[in-house]
Amino acid sequence: MPKRTDLFESDPDDTREAIMKATYDALSKHGYADLTIQRIGDEFDKSKSLLYHHYDSKDALLVDFLGFMLERMEGTIPLEEAAAADDRLRVGFDHVFAEILDGDREQFNRAMTELRAQSAHDDSFREQFTRNDRYFESRVQDIIEEGIQQGIFREVDAEQVASMLVTIIQGATFQATTSTEPDLDAVRTELDAYIESRLLDDD
Amino acid sequence: MPKRTDLFESDPDDTREAIMKATYDALSKHGYADLTIQRIGDEFDKSKSLLYHHYDSKDALLVDFLGFMLERMEGTIPLEEAAAADDRLRVGFDHVFAEILDGDREQFNRAMTELRAQSAHDDSFREQFTRNDRYFESRVQDIIEEGIQQGIFREVDAEQVASMLVTIIQGATFQATTSTEPDLDAVRTELDAYIESRLLDDD
Repeated sequence: MPKRTDLFESDPDDTREAIMKATYDALSKHGYADLTIQRIGDEFDKSKSLLYHHYDSKDALLVDFLGFMLERMEGTIPLEEAAAADDRLRVGFDHVFAEILDGDREQFNRAMTELRAQSAHDDSFREQFTRNDRYFESRVQDIIEEGIQQGIFREVDAEQVASMLVTIIQGATFQATTSTEPDLDAVRTELDAYIESRLLDDD
Repeated sequence: MPKRTDLFESDPDDTREAIMKATYDALSKHGYADLTIQRIGDEFDKSKSLLYHHYDSKDALLVDFLGFMLERMEGTIPLEEAAAADDRLRVGFDHVFAEILDGDREQFNRAMTELRAQSAHDDSFREQFTRNDRYFESRVQDIIEEGIQQGIFREVDAEQVASMLVTIIQGATFQATTSTEPDLDAVRTELDAYIESRLLDDD
């Protein structure tokens, strides 16, 4: 998830964007369980009746919020900044781990874990999170396939390795938000060792 | 998490055990969000007043339930069944993935994800889940250290690799319970590839 300042203008004109920003702020402040439309309204500069006009329920608003976050995220992860596939993977994972560990985003990250756990019993949440997963997985898969073509990576099953990498990111996010002593520095270091031993071609 | 039949006697005498069994059944049936002491009582053969006598709140009961599950789990994961460290890891992961993918446990697994997500804003849940994590991590670390001593594994940082393996299991569990299309067969296969490329000594 990108930083708040990368996601929103400081004073958005567009109503939907203003609602999304208020939702982000209310989620960061109250978490999912204590979130109400009223509390989103408290973060909202325009008329609160607009919220009720646009959304039937808190959960309908949140599903739209998840879709919005996905749109905005596309492009903010710097997977393209390096030429060689192994460097692109490392730059991308550095970015993701920095966001997971960013103290300023702690409350928001915890709220996202709560939201995702709602997927356990809510199909529309589950579908939206699955779309997010598939988006990241296909981006990672593209990079691995490129690495194979560049002769940097071994001829692995790129889809299978991408599934594993997305699973690791999810496990790290889950741990960061639900453990008293997440050791994510160890996981980040081991991720490099995994990429090196499993992907890098020795020749 | 072990199977229900491995965890509980069919008709437990002990009051705490009977409460734990009722909690397991109520969680499987209703999930966390819709769980009430009343609903746990509905699964309970003895006097419901016992529940209120033993626990102040639903969450106090659930923290005790998590501790109980950890006690019972110790020993049910068949990490000891093989002699060679790499086989012991594989047998253990086969067992864990079979539990994650077990259709009969789907509702219970989802409830556990919801419970774990509560840790995002509840310290006593977070501490109990962290204890569970540390228990598994130390078991896995022991096996890796043994593998190094047996000359089967490379001289890796066993704690770091154990952190990664626990992170992968958590990510897989999270995905199985919150995604519409978790590809855990791919993750299980890739886990073997990771162990082979990262841990197995070529000599």
